[in-house]
Amino acid sequence: MAPKDTDVESLVQRIKWNEQGLIPVVAQEATTREVLMLAWMNEEALKLTLSTRQVTYWSRSRNSLWRKGETSGHTQQLVEAKLDCDGDALLLLVNQTGAACHTGEKTCFFRGI
Amino acid sequence: MAPKDTDVESLVQRIKWNEQGLIPVVAQEATTREVLMLAWMNEEALKLTLSTRQVTYWSRSRNSLWRKGETSGHTQQLVEAKLDCDGDALLLLVNQTGAACHTGEKTCFFRGI
Repeated sequence: MAPKDTDVESLVQRIKWNEQGLIPVVAQEATTREVLMLAWMNEEALKLTLSTRQVTYWSRSRNSLWRKGETSGHTQQLVEAKLDCDGDALLLLVNQTGAACHTGEKTCFFRGI
Repeated sequence: MAPKDTDVESLVQRIKWNEQGLIPVVAQEATTREVLMLAWMNEEALKLTLSTRQVTYWSRSRNSLWRKGETSGHTQQLVEAKLDCDGDALLLLVNQTGAACHTGEKTCFFRGI
């Protein structure tokens, strides 16, 4: 069920957006708990994500909204969203279709140090 | 075993540091896979983390190095570090002593939306 508009507005007010109006977002596979990627959202991306349950980020390189999987089909369906204690980071539990990474890897964090 | 200096320098060169010379870092509990927090590192914090295996961040509010748990005792021991595909985010698998969050919660992401 999509959240009520008043709930979403209340959330948006609680978030500490950075100087560019963005917040970092960690996407985690809901079932395996694998961390898939770190990306960014602006207010519009967050509202779209919450209302459609399809995760939409803000692409800093393209300066545009980026519905995850819009070209690859590798969408992320929102299961649960959490805001951290100081309001400047989001964690999304998602169901990832296919690979999260543009390289074809399941997760963007495939390079060990 | 601490990584060799040349390995660390190679890693530091591969990272896309932001305009403030920082990179966002996701800490995940190695055993439970719970995402604990998102914080930031500069080059010095990363080098200290890799050489000591005790996670050290850069505090943006205090503008200083912040060895996690230095006052609370709630340290993070590094198990594994991963860099994402485009080199602008780090994922750390850690063994967390006590609570990761300053509120006393295990994770900073305890507020559901």
